[in-house]
Amino acid sequence: MYSVSELQNIINNEIDRLDYLGRKPHELYEPVCYALNNGGKRLRPLLTLMGCNLLSKEIETAVKPALAFEVFHNFTLLHDDIMDNAAVRRNKPTVHKKWDPNTAILSGDAMLILAYELLSGVPGNFLKESLDIFNKTALEVCEGQQYDMNFEKAPNTTENEYLEMIRLKTSVLMAASLQLGALLGGASVEERENIYLFGQNLGMAFQLQDDFLDTYGDEKTFGKQIGGDIVMNKKTFLLVKTIELAKESDIKKLKHLLFEENEPSKKIAGVKSIYERVNVAGITQKKISEYFTAALKSMDKIKVPDNRKPPLLDLTNNMFDRRV
Amino acid sequence: MYSVSELQNIINNEIDRLDYLGRKPHELYEPVCYALNNGGKRLRPLLTLMGCNLLSKEIETAVKPALAFEVFHNFTLLHDDIMDNAAVRRNKPTVHKKWDPNTAILSGDAMLILAYELLSGVPGNFLKESLDIFNKTALEVCEGQQYDMNFEKAPNTTENEYLEMIRLKTSVLMAASLQLGALLGGASVEERENIYLFGQNLGMAFQLQDDFLDTYGDEKTFGKQIGGDIVMNKKTFLLVKTIELAKESDIKKLKHLLFEENEPSKKIAGVKSIYERVNVAGITQKKISEYFTAALKSMDKIKVPDNRKPPLLDLTNNMFDRRV
Repeated sequence: MYSVSELQNIINNEIDRLDYLGRKPHELYEPVCYALNNGGKRLRPLLTLMGCNLLSKEIETAVKPALAFEVFHNFTLLHDDIMDNAAVRRNKPTVHKKWDPNTAILSGDAMLILAYELLSGVPGNFLKESLDIFNKTALEVCEGQQYDMNFEKAPNTTENEYLEMIRLKTSVLMAASLQLGALLGGASVEERENIYLFGQNLGMAFQLQDDFLDTYGDEKTFGKQIGGDIVMNKKTFLLVKTIELAKESDIKKLKHLLFEENEPSKKIAGVKSIYERVNVAGITQKKISEYFTAALKSMDKIKVPDNRKPPLLDLTNNMFDRRV
Repeated sequence: MYSVSELQNIINNEIDRLDYLGRKPHELYEPVCYALNNGGKRLRPLLTLMGCNLLSKEIETAVKPALAFEVFHNFTLLHDDIMDNAAVRRNKPTVHKKWDPNTAILSGDAMLILAYELLSGVPGNFLKESLDIFNKTALEVCEGQQYDMNFEKAPNTTENEYLEMIRLKTSVLMAASLQLGALLGGASVEERENIYLFGQNLGMAFQLQDDFLDTYGDEKTFGKQIGGDIVMNKKTFLLVKTIELAKESDIKKLKHLLFEENEPSKKIAGVKSIYERVNVAGITQKKISEYFTAALKSMDKIKVPDNRKPPLLDLTNNMFDRRV
């Protein structure tokens, strides 16, 4: 079995070897490399390799498609940053700020195609199924981003609508990354379904935790400024659930804070005090636990020797520990 | 053999049947349908079906990939229109004007993925090669668009640089459309190479003719306002070649007209009078003829019974006739 750090090394070495900078014109490929070398966690390619390694000792065939998911993920970040008019990602200027929006659109397009170029490296007998998984997932991610944009304009978003949005925007990509790895590792249809569900539940927990940590995390370990979602009026599970549960006078206060309070620290403190009154922190943590538990149940159903599961279970537990 | 109009009917029926409007969210798929139903010539899918029909009576397997090229082509128009800030395409508002730039970015992304979804419909034994052709071509089109954007800022663009740009931006997609059809029709490697060269030369002639007609065409038959490229300071073969050939005093006049003359009719008349002094119309027509001749030579080399060639030759001749 490969350890997480061994797999991360493989991924980082392969990303270094992509050499998109050797392609022309530079004006197209330089932003692609800039976007790819962002110090990210490489979670999706890691899941592909771990999905493969869960069933097979040989992970070679999964390396290229693993990178396809990473390149695809970074394409979505690049285009999402234009749509959100985000100036900074991981402490670096976003592509459309460092260059310009046109460069960001076109380089993003190229990245989406480069993801397919990597995907075409899977063994021929798996190509059709791999392409189908990838196409379906890529469209779902676009659909999730559209729902996210719709919600920015919608006054009331229900919990279920919000959960379906993050399922599409975040979870299915993690699920598909794992599933494609398992497919290449020789998983049966049933095993692939269970690993997909594992990944999807893990992805839900992951995104809800992101929502939680943005308000309740520790700035040092989380790596982002705490309260950013509140300042930006971002629809998160915390906000959606609070709007559902808060009494009318608090909703009124909340709307005032969101739309009229311009001082960030006052806005964060005010919104958090309303969050506290409905105990949305506790509700969110409970929801996260439910998804983690569901993920582990799907993992239980996968019939591989138990000694093949620890790396993936360790990763899951580490993600769960991120909470505290 | 299928006639051009029979093939166009097949394509239009299949486009109607795509039913992207049945997918959700509407906000994502409505602009996709709007962009696809634009009354275009459907030239690229036509070339795929004709490439297949050149070798085989059965064109069924080529229909889905033919549509993949059409959806891809319309994706490039959608994103190019954002980058060019174009307000109108085929007498209709562009997607980013009718909706907004974010919608246009995301719907364009979805279209690129939908193109791959259609492509995945090729028979399994052709999938790897089809995907490789498609990926290579799609990246080249992005590269061409980047060169085009670079040239807008570059003071001097050479004829060769310009020709390489239009090869990437326009010709390779027509070449690949034909080539993939031929592949599915059972063409040998040599036949595929010749049909690719035929398509590439045809594409070069097609784009140069577009440049020519934008200045020298008949408004009624061309369907666009004449002189639009001149008004927009667009780098065309006519402009690049005139800058190469004109004497210094005319270059000075030309720059004045491009950057300081705001009255469209004066600008068009002034630039055209300089074009006339270097006979750039004649030079362009000669270049177009050369590419058509080269296309026909590649077609000559394709060893199929001569009675299979007429539809493709008719299409070529019709495109050539568009000149007068």
